[in-house]
Amino acid sequence: MPKPWATLGVDLHLEPSGPGLRRSLTDALREAVRSARLAPGTRLPSSRSLAVDLGIARNTVAEAYAELVAEGWLTARQGSGTRVTDRTVIPPTGTATPRPETPRPAYDLIPGTPDLAAFPRTEWLKAARRAFLTAPNQALGYGDPRGRPELRTALAGYLARARGVRADPECVVVCAGFVHGLQLLARVLRARGVQTVAVESYGLPPHWRQLTAAGLTMAPLPFDELGTHPGRLSDQGAVLLTPAHQFPMGVPLHRDRRATVVDWARRTGGLVLEDDYDGEFRYDRQPVGALQGLDPDHVVYLGTASKSLAPALRLAWMVLPAALVKEVTEAKGGSDTCGVLDQLTLAEFLTSGAYDRHVRAARLRYRRRRDALVDALSTQAPHLRITGIAAGLHAVLRLPPGTERSVTQAATWQGLALHGLASYRHGSTTTEPLDALVVGYGTPPDHAWAGALEALCRVLP
Amino acid sequence: MPKPWATLGVDLHLEPSGPGLRRSLTDALREAVRSARLAPGTRLPSSRSLAVDLGIARNTVAEAYAELVAEGWLTARQGSGTRVTDRTVIPPTGTATPRPETPRPAYDLIPGTPDLAAFPRTEWLKAARRAFLTAPNQALGYGDPRGRPELRTALAGYLARARGVRADPECVVVCAGFVHGLQLLARVLRARGVQTVAVESYGLPPHWRQLTAAGLTMAPLPFDELGTHPGRLSDQGAVLLTPAHQFPMGVPLHRDRRATVVDWARRTGGLVLEDDYDGEFRYDRQPVGALQGLDPDHVVYLGTASKSLAPALRLAWMVLPAALVKEVTEAKGGSDTCGVLDQLTLAEFLTSGAYDRHVRAARLRYRRRRDALVDALSTQAPHLRITGIAAGLHAVLRLPPGTERSVTQAATWQGLALHGLASYRHGSTTTEPLDALVVGYGTPPDHAWAGALEALCRVLP
Repeated sequence: MPKPWATLGVDLHLEPSGPGLRRSLTDALREAVRSARLAPGTRLPSSRSLAVDLGIARNTVAEAYAELVAEGWLTARQGSGTRVTDRTVIPPTGTATPRPETPRPAYDLIPGTPDLAAFPRTEWLKAARRAFLTAPNQALGYGDPRGRPELRTALAGYLARARGVRADPECVVVCAGFVHGLQLLARVLRARGVQTVAVESYGLPPHWRQLTAAGLTMAPLPFDELGTHPGRLSDQGAVLLTPAHQFPMGVPLHRDRRATVVDWARRTGGLVLEDDYDGEFRYDRQPVGALQGLDPDHVVYLGTASKSLAPALRLAWMVLPAALVKEVTEAKGGSDTCGVLDQLTLAEFLTSGAYDRHVRAARLRYRRRRDALVDALSTQAPHLRITGIAAGLHAVLRLPPGTERSVTQAATWQGLALHGLASYRHGSTTTEPLDALVVGYGTPPDHAWAGALEALCRVLP
Repeated sequence: MPKPWATLGVDLHLEPSGPGLRRSLTDALREAVRSARLAPGTRLPSSRSLAVDLGIARNTVAEAYAELVAEGWLTARQGSGTRVTDRTVIPPTGTATPRPETPRPAYDLIPGTPDLAAFPRTEWLKAARRAFLTAPNQALGYGDPRGRPELRTALAGYLARARGVRADPECVVVCAGFVHGLQLLARVLRARGVQTVAVESYGLPPHWRQLTAAGLTMAPLPFDELGTHPGRLSDQGAVLLTPAHQFPMGVPLHRDRRATVVDWARRTGGLVLEDDYDGEFRYDRQPVGALQGLDPDHVVYLGTASKSLAPALRLAWMVLPAALVKEVTEAKGGSDTCGVLDQLTLAEFLTSGAYDRHVRAARLRYRRRRDALVDALSTQAPHLRITGIAAGLHAVLRLPPGTERSVTQAATWQGLALHGLASYRHGSTTTEPLDALVVGYGTPPDHAWAGALEALCRVLP
């Protein structure tokens, strides 16, 4: 042993003996079926004759057959022996290469994604291990639709400290990304009878689509040099805002206007949906605290790990007015929607200080990039004005009127993924269009950053 | 050093020197603020005087202050120095104990949850490590709304082999549990103009609620000794079924009726939603292959890791007719909804054989419990008939007419969580009610199983 399998016509490598033998036989047979060396429908030798041929105990063979029958690789039928299951003509299994993802451009300055190469994989796995091995068994069952209590508690503490959010863990609801949270809120608003939601003149079309999908119409607020103008808020049931760092324009909502928004909400019973997508990243100014801190009963705070860690975690959070918690968790389908392992890991990350360390390092990296961007533009395109640079992972670069489209087109030709401001302008806004680029300087990995910056300078007018 | 901080009035333990010093100082200061030993609003000494007091470089102190300002613990304002941030009066951070979850009964025989103590935590973490450290950076970004290609490919192979599903990875959509999948499908059906969905007389109320929430009405099909009777299928747009193992009755859908259902779908363009919640667990019979294998264009196959691994993973999957993929992913909000780490880990689990090994061990454990249940009942309650025992994680125990309610009530008094069949009967079914218990023998951990079984026998009539 190993010897040829005279009765089977297939050579397999087997452990010589001991407890590994049955396992080794099972694995070898499974692999022979999987790889189609044993074709569908093939009748296997009886366990007795295969055992004789292999010089092993008959029971060992019978047990291996039984396992493979249970798994569906083999079929045992009274009177016709054991055969390779007919339906084993199957699509490629795990050994097949997954098909390549969408080809990427050489350089990518689309905003909205952090530097994925900087994700702290090892730290994350360490935290996962600590968190998972100490979690109670009950944590593995169907959970609270709001999310794990460990994470809700850790988030409440962190958001209070870092963002000035007034958060009770009981009112924190974990969700699978900002869009998921917005989807839930939109459905709840619609079910409450809300018909119109005010939005900013500039924002993200996928967010607007969620509102439309829930049956809501949108009323864009005007935008001027002080940011979004809330003067036209009236009988809309809610307003969706990015108060700390307007996306994509990059300005904070003016202090007076913050007050106007909150007053409106109090007066009319409207709801403010505060999208705080990159509150962790600010460079030259004091942090702008969350609007929610001004009135937790009328503001829903929404934060995400997509910019500070990675979108693939699919972890975001809402801090809700207490009165909304039940409706939102029901809209979730009544059960938790995020994997518990990631939730526990993020809780551990937050409470151990690993999150702060990671954000600190990331902030430094992005600030350096921001500085390099500003430097490069000041020498190579001194006639262009750059705004929105005090915070976040993107900047807005104003272009001469009428040039935006030709610049983004030139970028595409050069293998540089680049968005113009037009992609973020609401279709129904009356705000005058501006020609500009929205430069996501957080997106490239470090090694591609210098190249991306050069490519950008090359396409500027 | 460590010496008292004369200027600060707080003793901290510091690393004597070296690169650890700044970190140690930062951590100590943060902890002093967090624990409120440094109260909100407290003005800190200048970096110069604290440095002198501590006998360390001024830069070290300045850097520590800067970090804590960046994190939001401290506030630096021109002219008024550095202070402990006012809003640091916060809810308990991670050091606080999360509030206890709902108290559990002494014994739990509610069906629907596997033995959580048997989750292969160490194996899972090992697979996570292998999968995560080798994943491309791109996997950490916003992903395909269908889920990771590695997982879709692995699932397609597994489902073909183990369940007879005809699965193209392009048509597999990963979702956050069965309920999430059903929610998406219900919305898509409603948007297509479907008004009524046929359901089984027995099933899970949370599933029915998803249909209602999407604006669909339900038409229950009758149930008899051969299982659900599809004779009344007519102009409903879809039917929700558990063909391999009716939940909770435990019978497979009769062969002739399988054909009837598929014929109906072909004839009317209706859609079959096949809930294959515990297809992995069958004991005394050949596996019942998925209905989807008969007609992949009219059947949506839905499977889940909630029974085979644990509900907390929040991982389930749909195999969709190609024509439905776009609508379902749009209903998802256009982005992936499940954490990539868990998706990659499950893919690794499936392709490495760890999943098969785990399921095999679990099947053995549950079969032993099933046998113990049948044995115990045959001696202690020989007058009661037990059905649905050939597969799954639960059995149905018929009771004398009129006794169900008093038995479940007695169980509650004895600290035994136990559901009667009435909890699973559709409100509008015309099928005659039966008195029975649905005994979830998969739920208790091993050490509690014998006790749970005794408790059950005690409350039987």
